[in-house]
Amino acid sequence: MTAQTSQTNRRPVILTGDRPTGPLHLGHFVGSLKSRVALQDSHEQYLLLADTQAMTDNAHDPDKVRRNVLEVALDYLAVGIDPAKTTITVQSHLPALAELTLMYLNFVTVARLERNPTIKEEIQARGFGRDIPAGFLCYPASQAADITGFKAEVVPVGEDQAPLIEQTNEIVRRINHQVGRDVLPECKAMIPQFGRLPGVDGKAKMSKSMGNAIALGAAPEQIKAAVHSMYTDPNHLRVSDPGQVEGNVVFTYLDAFDPNTEEVQALKEHYQRGGLGDMVLKRRIEGVLQDMLAPIRERREALAKDPDYVFDILRQGTAKARELTQQTLEEVRDALGMFSFESRR
Amino acid sequence: MTAQTSQTNRRPVILTGDRPTGPLHLGHFVGSLKSRVALQDSHEQYLLLADTQAMTDNAHDPDKVRRNVLEVALDYLAVGIDPAKTTITVQSHLPALAELTLMYLNFVTVARLERNPTIKEEIQARGFGRDIPAGFLCYPASQAADITGFKAEVVPVGEDQAPLIEQTNEIVRRINHQVGRDVLPECKAMIPQFGRLPGVDGKAKMSKSMGNAIALGAAPEQIKAAVHSMYTDPNHLRVSDPGQVEGNVVFTYLDAFDPNTEEVQALKEHYQRGGLGDMVLKRRIEGVLQDMLAPIRERREALAKDPDYVFDILRQGTAKARELTQQTLEEVRDALGMFSFESRR
Repeated sequence: MTAQTSQTNRRPVILTGDRPTGPLHLGHFVGSLKSRVALQDSHEQYLLLADTQAMTDNAHDPDKVRRNVLEVALDYLAVGIDPAKTTITVQSHLPALAELTLMYLNFVTVARLERNPTIKEEIQARGFGRDIPAGFLCYPASQAADITGFKAEVVPVGEDQAPLIEQTNEIVRRINHQVGRDVLPECKAMIPQFGRLPGVDGKAKMSKSMGNAIALGAAPEQIKAAVHSMYTDPNHLRVSDPGQVEGNVVFTYLDAFDPNTEEVQALKEHYQRGGLGDMVLKRRIEGVLQDMLAPIRERREALAKDPDYVFDILRQGTAKARELTQQTLEEVRDALGMFSFESRR
Repeated sequence: MTAQTSQTNRRPVILTGDRPTGPLHLGHFVGSLKSRVALQDSHEQYLLLADTQAMTDNAHDPDKVRRNVLEVALDYLAVGIDPAKTTITVQSHLPALAELTLMYLNFVTVARLERNPTIKEEIQARGFGRDIPAGFLCYPASQAADITGFKAEVVPVGEDQAPLIEQTNEIVRRINHQVGRDVLPECKAMIPQFGRLPGVDGKAKMSKSMGNAIALGAAPEQIKAAVHSMYTDPNHLRVSDPGQVEGNVVFTYLDAFDPNTEEVQALKEHYQRGGLGDMVLKRRIEGVLQDMLAPIRERREALAKDPDYVFDILRQGTAKARELTQQTLEEVRDALGMFSFESRR
């Protein structure tokens, strides 16, 4: 908390969000949703349904993006995001963000965008090669517009996304330097405490497209099947064999979700000694996940029956965000000395 | 004119405009302003004060762009652009164009933008090297947004800008193909009949920054001085010498502006035979230019005393354009199937 915020008792502004390209899953829950539910009490929190950004690599399938705006909003509300405390907003309906993006593109060079390690890696991971959509190369400027448009001071990001924060602050510093005052605040990255949740198959990242995810709205039998397929210790062939805990997805999940850490510790020791079968552990984690996901699924299903209610929340959040981001746009334009019908300097 | 336009008696939509980076000059008058005054009777004409685009290479000096929005508007009105026939509008106050630009950036690759010969040449001419602002690389997408945002069917461009029209139509075809119908019209380039007016120094292009221009609002003594410095035939040393007409700026200007083509033809022959001094010719072209520019200057000065009137014209034109471009944005989004609060498919 900066000196200013403690003086005025203003809560720091935090911006986060998701590309609506699929329903959220346990990986999102561990990596961000849980902490967002906590942060909405201590921060002025904005959640951005980043459908404009999702278009940078889904322009061929806008329908997928559109459908998932509602799906992700349902996930937010189901896990306990409270629209009275958190503003949920739809990026494509905030024109000031598009205008700020275009402006910021003039304050960053192509060479700088290409050097961004996140962009470099994602270009490789997505196999774009040289035929990368221009919008994809430009999306750090779009993120800078998001962050500064809301005047966010804190931005929760994965460790691999820290360069995007640095890119944003470079643009902020360049504009502040040019206008001779701090029209935009710099922001800080907030790196999550619990890292990435592996997929049920043991791969480093849980991802819907890789088929190793458990969706937040998963049905009981889907949870059961996913747990059944969980990666354990491939060398633990007989119950009596000693088993390995590290890299064993069941234990990673028990660490992440089982509230009884002492029993989990005892189970780990038993497994390492030998004499504890995988099925016992899988039944335990399945019970934990079923208990945790049942109320989320129920809330999600109830909300899904009342889309008008959810759309109203998005509409209200977007109206509030529209005003805020428009205000920022006007401040930046005014500071830069751009054309305005109102002030005819 | 397409079959459709002749059937409905609708006037074809034409979009043109200028980057407001300096007052307009005789080069603009010959190359575009004169034909715009004629076209406003046969076309539904929109003039875009492209201040957003001007920022792509003037981000360090937004004040220059801002000041020149009014200057260029004064030039338009002074030469006879009639706000009752032509809609004059300010690009930075049309958020739908920014939103369309960001969308189109997803339908064009970086490699394609880099291959654009206009961009290639301008990068070289402006000395950007590898440190080109990202906004500058992206400006063909911004032009595509302008053209399609107004659903322009005809776009007057210099011969060197024809590739930008092709780039726009590529984006249009890609989107129309994806949505399975013609949501956006393709556009046609209109190449001006009279080519480029050379600078008074004989260089191919008249340009304020090169100091070889005569501004439309130039004072009589500025016109006199510019004509005095005009490039003629450097080998025409004595009045009795035969002189060369080709490349002789005075004759180029007489061809462009002197209403009496027969007398100009006689002067050319006399000059080629020998016995006609440069000063006689310069006095003639000075008289022609003074006569032509005096009423333009007077209208310009009168309008400059009433900026409220000019701002009202821009405000009204921009309000009309805002509605039109917003409508296009919504049609494109709807066709692509993007998120909307209104239609919840």
